[in-house]
Amino acid sequence: MATAMARLPKAWETEVDKEPRKHWLGQRRPPVRCDEASLKEVSKSLLVPMVQYAELHGLLYAAKDQSIDPSAATQCPVAMLPFKIPAQAFDECVALSKLWNELVDAVARDLPWLYATLEPAANADPFTARLMGISKAVHAAGLRQKLMLGIHRSDYMLHEPGDSSPRFLQVELNTIASSMASHSANTETLHRYLLSRYGEGSDPTALALREHFGGAGELVSHLPQNATLKEIPAALARAHGAYGAKDAVVLMVVQEEERNFADQRWLEYALWEEHGVKVVRKSLGQLHRELAMDPSSGRLRLDSGAGQEVSVVYFRAGYSPDDYSSEAEWEARLVLEQSLAIKCPSVDYQLVGAKKVQQALARQGAVERFIGPGDSSKLRGCFAGLWGLGLGEDDSYIIKKACSDPNLYVLKPQREGGGNNFYGKDVATQLKKLSEQERGAYILMQRILPKLQSTVMTRAGTAEVMLGLSEFGFFSVFLGDGRQALLSEHAGHLVRTKADGVDEGGVAAGYAVISSPFLVQ
Amino acid sequence: MATAMARLPKAWETEVDKEPRKHWLGQRRPPVRCDEASLKEVSKSLLVPMVQYAELHGLLYAAKDQSIDPSAATQCPVAMLPFKIPAQAFDECVALSKLWNELVDAVARDLPWLYATLEPAANADPFTARLMGISKAVHAAGLRQKLMLGIHRSDYMLHEPGDSSPRFLQVELNTIASSMASHSANTETLHRYLLSRYGEGSDPTALALREHFGGAGELVSHLPQNATLKEIPAALARAHGAYGAKDAVVLMVVQEEERNFADQRWLEYALWEEHGVKVVRKSLGQLHRELAMDPSSGRLRLDSGAGQEVSVVYFRAGYSPDDYSSEAEWEARLVLEQSLAIKCPSVDYQLVGAKKVQQALARQGAVERFIGPGDSSKLRGCFAGLWGLGLGEDDSYIIKKACSDPNLYVLKPQREGGGNNFYGKDVATQLKKLSEQERGAYILMQRILPKLQSTVMTRAGTAEVMLGLSEFGFFSVFLGDGRQALLSEHAGHLVRTKADGVDEGGVAAGYAVISSPFLVQ
Repeated sequence: MATAMARLPKAWETEVDKEPRKHWLGQRRPPVRCDEASLKEVSKSLLVPMVQYAELHGLLYAAKDQSIDPSAATQCPVAMLPFKIPAQAFDECVALSKLWNELVDAVARDLPWLYATLEPAANADPFTARLMGISKAVHAAGLRQKLMLGIHRSDYMLHEPGDSSPRFLQVELNTIASSMASHSANTETLHRYLLSRYGEGSDPTALALREHFGGAGELVSHLPQNATLKEIPAALARAHGAYGAKDAVVLMVVQEEERNFADQRWLEYALWEEHGVKVVRKSLGQLHRELAMDPSSGRLRLDSGAGQEVSVVYFRAGYSPDDYSSEAEWEARLVLEQSLAIKCPSVDYQLVGAKKVQQALARQGAVERFIGPGDSSKLRGCFAGLWGLGLGEDDSYIIKKACSDPNLYVLKPQREGGGNNFYGKDVATQLKKLSEQERGAYILMQRILPKLQSTVMTRAGTAEVMLGLSEFGFFSVFLGDGRQALLSEHAGHLVRTKADGVDEGGVAAGYAVISSPFLVQ
Repeated sequence: MATAMARLPKAWETEVDKEPRKHWLGQRRPPVRCDEASLKEVSKSLLVPMVQYAELHGLLYAAKDQSIDPSAATQCPVAMLPFKIPAQAFDECVALSKLWNELVDAVARDLPWLYATLEPAANADPFTARLMGISKAVHAAGLRQKLMLGIHRSDYMLHEPGDSSPRFLQVELNTIASSMASHSANTETLHRYLLSRYGEGSDPTALALREHFGGAGELVSHLPQNATLKEIPAALARAHGAYGAKDAVVLMVVQEEERNFADQRWLEYALWEEHGVKVVRKSLGQLHRELAMDPSSGRLRLDSGAGQEVSVVYFRAGYSPDDYSSEAEWEARLVLEQSLAIKCPSVDYQLVGAKKVQQALARQGAVERFIGPGDSSKLRGCFAGLWGLGLGEDDSYIIKKACSDPNLYVLKPQREGGGNNFYGKDVATQLKKLSEQERGAYILMQRILPKLQSTVMTRAGTAEVMLGLSEFGFFSVFLGDGRQALLSEHAGHLVRTKADGVDEGGVAAGYAVISSPFLVQ
């Protein structure tokens, strides 16, 4: 059963988390500023203007029920206001983008290391095994297309334990189907509008907004420009150009029923309007029926070979076992990987995003295998603590520390996919209960402790003021052939805010919205 | 009962006509080109891309049912493809815009003529009487604000009886709440995208599109630029500037439950983003509670006098008896008219849009009373034939003609508002049945005979290929004080396409979509 299979890390679900990130939550602490009452007034007066502006500027989702009206839509869940974060930490993360690009490419090109690292995961997880099988088959036949295009997103949370300056710690690195780039840019446009239109003057709304944000200078001057809708289409266009067939199309591999069409379409429109490059959208199932590859050249053509040539394959599907409901989809994936088209990402890039690789890179000397010591040290600066357990690891010191202060750790299963983590005092209880053998199936991770902020979350036309915390994504784009980088850029950012309510008890349902950063000193 | 009262001409309903324009339909004739089969293929392949592009570029309506999700939305009903019209006729209509501006202002400033003309209508119709009462009260107290802002829309249909060159004949002149300007601009953007993205190349869709349009040069080169979203906000900003209070706001008077928020919001956004002018939206009922006028200066302020000053009152409501559900709304309207704020339109401008005024202007010498002979003759060139009946009118010649060729005429009641028209052989039957006294309640109008075109209408995410005909609106903006014009511009256009099916029998429900013009030689 596909659903029983573990998953590689996938784009974070904004609508409702399928598996709420329980480790997201720090201890409950009082918010920095108790301005919930005035924010409630703001949320009342701005709700209708906000929702209408959002919807008219492309922040849309397909409605869950389109049976009567196939055009039925609803707002994208967004925060009414941006989320305050320290400017310095933000800038430091921006500077890491090109290093992640370099690291992903280097790891993907070191197949012996990659396969060896993933071997245990592949043994436990048929999905990882299948992807590795495709990689091996492609390389065994000789890699037709050395150029690989990456649109990565490194996700962080702000660690603010109170006694030291705040810094970003990485949650995960997404190397396939990194989503929300368009919504992020459009949410920033929304926030820019709201803060400029309603943040000046002496009416109660304007006063409350300036009070909330602390009010140094014009509010909009605190919003950094977000380059997602410029850099990501430009990267796809660059790969299209490198492929070298002007009339070819970019193939966007999509899921059959995609409610988040808006996030994908804006990239398509920018590719067309800024670069004159056409995008064609197909699911893996459709591709199995409609795609043909010339066996000698490896060129892909649509319409069973009678249609347009494909220059770039951009996966917005294929990251989850659910996207492969039969052998047909796996066959389509194999053909795509074997072809001359430039893949975004290649199956190798996809594999680099596995949890197991993240763990392996955390080991001493691992990052340093791939990139220089200075850059390695910069990347390590955002690694959360990660300790293997059992199986001969020298873990007595860390187990003792975790048992005495369990709130600072999360106990996670080694296997790919999320869920079944232990938090708080359960960490200590579990550590004491497990044998050394059993501990081998777990790792201990440092728990990231973000501060909470009052936030206004909106979805389905309603607003709620609550304490929230945010995850910050930093996009980067890379095009390289294993010898040189044709392109390596930071490509914008993403803020997703979640209510303080998905806690260890797992009572509340996951609840997240797109926001944008408001930079403070 | 408000609903029993007749209405002044109002913005045409795109969703579903409340009173289908039965006179719209010419005789059924074969379409110019029978390409329905290939258009059906086009409509299948382009439906999803079209609907998603439309929705992401602001072509939205609030869903009818927002009870569960107040952000629920649906697509604006649009034609998938533009509508072919002769370039020369289009250009001739553009050239009339400034003449309509001049005429409306001149008529509105000639109160004795206006009141005398409307007297019979006011006697029959309490709504007209009430508006005239407000006009008289305002002028009796001394007109505080001589500047009046007009955003007019002159609506035409193309008369193509086959034996002469096609020309536009006017259906009506809208002087209040002329709508669909934003949707029109955005539909043109949509068509520009579809024709450029899908109209080139040799795939079946591209071939069918070029076949349908006749294919001279690039398809998009046939789409004229539409200036609505530039000129209309610029006119509001010009009036705001002329009022002279920089921090004042433009007050948009809206209906309580407005599904067509998108068409209004784009004007608001352009006013803010291009001109730095704020818009505040209020219904007449809200204004009755929240608005205060300084009795000596006539300055309007929101929040019972504590809030922002109002520079311009832009009516997107107030044209229908339904907008005045109690005396409160009438009182609010009176205060608005008495104030120093610039009205768009003033009640006098609104009255010029009455059907009775259109009839009076059709009489010999009437237009010439207001503007020069050359310009009068240009305007008369688009007047459909109009003949008063009974009551001493010398109507024997025209009655004889109408009885012998009834398909060329419509028999309409004199009173304000639509409905109860007679078409085809019913014209002759009715004319023979009525006494001279009874005929006095009717007028005969020339029937406009447009050619039908194959068209793809979309609504609620579905497409239908059918024969359609179009009504063409030409916007114009004017600001003047009765002595000089500060502004007089053509301000873009509108195409609405309706299915060939709302015929004399009134079988099919009204069904119209927004389109755009495709200019042909």
